[in-house]
Amino acid sequence: MIEYRAIRVALLGAGSVGSQVARLLLEHGDELAKRIGAPIELVGIAVRDLDAKRDADLPRELFTTDAHSLIVGADIVIELMGGIEPAREYVLQAINSGADVVTGNKALLASHGAELFAAAEQVGAQLSYEAAVAGAIPIIRPLRESLAGDRVERILGIVNGTTNFILDRMDSTGASLEDALATATELGYAEADPTADIGGYDAAQKAAILASLAFHTTVSADAVHREGITGVTAEQVESARRAGYVVKLLAICERLADPETGAEGVSARVYPALVPRSHPLAAVRGANNAVFVEAAAAGPLMFYGAGAGGVQTASAVLGDLVAIARRHVIGGPGTSESTHADLPLLPIGRITTRYSVTLEVTDEPGVLETVAHVFADHGVSVEQLQQTVEASTGRATLVIGTHEAAEAALASTVASLAESPVVASVASVLRIEGAE
Amino acid sequence: MIEYRAIRVALLGAGSVGSQVARLLLEHGDELAKRIGAPIELVGIAVRDLDAKRDADLPRELFTTDAHSLIVGADIVIELMGGIEPAREYVLQAINSGADVVTGNKALLASHGAELFAAAEQVGAQLSYEAAVAGAIPIIRPLRESLAGDRVERILGIVNGTTNFILDRMDSTGASLEDALATATELGYAEADPTADIGGYDAAQKAAILASLAFHTTVSADAVHREGITGVTAEQVESARRAGYVVKLLAICERLADPETGAEGVSARVYPALVPRSHPLAAVRGANNAVFVEAAAAGPLMFYGAGAGGVQTASAVLGDLVAIARRHVIGGPGTSESTHADLPLLPIGRITTRYSVTLEVTDEPGVLETVAHVFADHGVSVEQLQQTVEASTGRATLVIGTHEAAEAALASTVASLAESPVVASVASVLRIEGAE
Repeated sequence: MIEYRAIRVALLGAGSVGSQVARLLLEHGDELAKRIGAPIELVGIAVRDLDAKRDADLPRELFTTDAHSLIVGADIVIELMGGIEPAREYVLQAINSGADVVTGNKALLASHGAELFAAAEQVGAQLSYEAAVAGAIPIIRPLRESLAGDRVERILGIVNGTTNFILDRMDSTGASLEDALATATELGYAEADPTADIGGYDAAQKAAILASLAFHTTVSADAVHREGITGVTAEQVESARRAGYVVKLLAICERLADPETGAEGVSARVYPALVPRSHPLAAVRGANNAVFVEAAAAGPLMFYGAGAGGVQTASAVLGDLVAIARRHVIGGPGTSESTHADLPLLPIGRITTRYSVTLEVTDEPGVLETVAHVFADHGVSVEQLQQTVEASTGRATLVIGTHEAAEAALASTVASLAESPVVASVASVLRIEGAE
Repeated sequence: MIEYRAIRVALLGAGSVGSQVARLLLEHGDELAKRIGAPIELVGIAVRDLDAKRDADLPRELFTTDAHSLIVGADIVIELMGGIEPAREYVLQAINSGADVVTGNKALLASHGAELFAAAEQVGAQLSYEAAVAGAIPIIRPLRESLAGDRVERILGIVNGTTNFILDRMDSTGASLEDALATATELGYAEADPTADIGGYDAAQKAAILASLAFHTTVSADAVHREGITGVTAEQVESARRAGYVVKLLAICERLADPETGAEGVSARVYPALVPRSHPLAAVRGANNAVFVEAAAAGPLMFYGAGAGGVQTASAVLGDLVAIARRHVIGGPGTSESTHADLPLLPIGRITTRYSVTLEVTDEPGVLETVAHVFADHGVSVEQLQQTVEASTGRATLVIGTHEAAEAALASTVASLAESPVVASVASVLRIEGAE
């Protein structure tokens, strides 16, 4: 097998996302190398202050304040500093020194995206930014590539976790905005100065990025119509609830005809809106994010998941990194469909899950005990049991829900139950999936 | 600007997906060329029988029965014939003659995927198959690329629209499996011979593809544990409903430790299971599909949309096609972030949406008429109106829901309402989004 030289990665920024990216790169280096077909070498982490408190697991010698030197020697630069400068300068330096770039910097893209994309295109560099919108949720790549042959008509996005947490809490508890914000702050979902979130500024940056990509048009954040949630009252939320709606802060990107000229145009806007309870977006709870996309051919699609969080967002950064790194080793042994892991496929008897077993039994004393004994005998733990007696027949129905149990143990339990004199029949056995 | 030569595309198969792909390629050729940076030329459509009934909009001269000759001259081959042979032979021929391949053939991939991927890797060809799983929903690309730096722990997929339609109907109407299947057949959701769907064979093929990709391990469809929905009874569905569950046919791909050896293994299985009503998958109605993915860093993610349909699935095929074609013109003018469309950003006043307006009014005769008149005067059509009177104060609250109206018209309506003598105050104005 050909040995490929290591791909040199420079990381700029060691905040909550950056330090998770560094940790995952160091911990899962071997696995990532197999997927890529070449090793990844984290050559350094640029920070502003060497003495700041750091994740103790990250080797001190990786840290430097000299971002420029780090960038010069890198194949791929990951920019997770946030803010406009010096992030913009560093990204441009990286592009012009021949590196590809991964960034999660929404403020930078929403204000200087056009400049950066033009610079990257000029030299044939790749610039990826999945982490900039909706955290861990793959939305940039689907819009960029999966829907590249389709025509996006509209995007409705819940792209700010803080405001969704607040509005969800107002909806579920009747709290005022002030109280819900206090809870969000207490639980770490809102920052000390929540203006960027509750004022809709963060959502407007994401709307600008989504609209630019979906409509092949430059849209900057300050051109996005923006209304935050500061005016939303408990009365509005309650009135919406009674009418079958839920209030959500939406980032809306829409292709539409200008009513005055008839010419095609786009709208990008952020405001709190009423969403019907039956809409998939209405079910997005807590600090989660979701992006609902309507495309001409594909129809409605929804992408749902965690919109923030260090490790979650790091997943999006690493996805971009691996995709770019693979292009550095085209023709190499690592590909998406490689079967390097070659794990054994386990038969159904070796899985564990939860079960719901329905039995028809005779209604007489001791039946419950006998049935419970059969489950216990095979090491299957019962979580709940519901008995319904039909007086006319003297027959009872037992519905037993189990804790996690081995499929093989459940199968032998069911076989024993079928032979038990107190069991008339095993009416139903179904597995339970997706339960907490 | 450099002129790039046309990218030659051969299409194999002209069924419901194939004919939509051809139509979209012909209708939207100019727009696709801008996105790619080079024109796309559909050089021909290979079919078995030239005399079969065809989409009348497709030029007859494109059709041929000579797939081999078509493949030889193509840069990209789109295989949408279905079945194993001759699809397998054609895909291998395409790869070995230097073409890249897009396929939607789940049966082929689930049985011969390893062979085809190895052949593609050998010569550096691309082989894309977004359309093979869950129709229009981008799931292959997110697993291949977005989550390439993460570790997928589990996938729970509703990947067969026919069975989801049937189970959803049993759940919502109490119908028997037989009756729900009859409805599905009548509405075109089930084929005359529904075995592949209700027997779980189709879902097992998709489970094999998802497990192979997610776990970097070869899993073939016949190794997937498979239970169809033929044993699901109305009683089970009703009993599940009472217990807070819904029955769904799930394709489950899971990484787990072998209980006997402790070694890491994978499970791929298909069976009807109870899913808690609160789980995002429980809300997947009708013939829709959704794939729920749990990854170590990203946490839970869900991808939702249409799982079948000619034009929907064609969207996935074209996404693959554009992504591959772009690589043929790297450095060319077309990139994902190109702003070739350059559409004008319309101000908020030019959008149309629906509105909910809450007014505090005096409770006296003629108020409703006056308020209705103001709306009509500004061309805003009222869809519903709810009046609540508080006897003690003589004040009434009106909640007015509008049909689609222009933002500017609504703004002037609200301004007039605020000045009306019968209106004490405009308590709330919220837009309604996502309503039918």
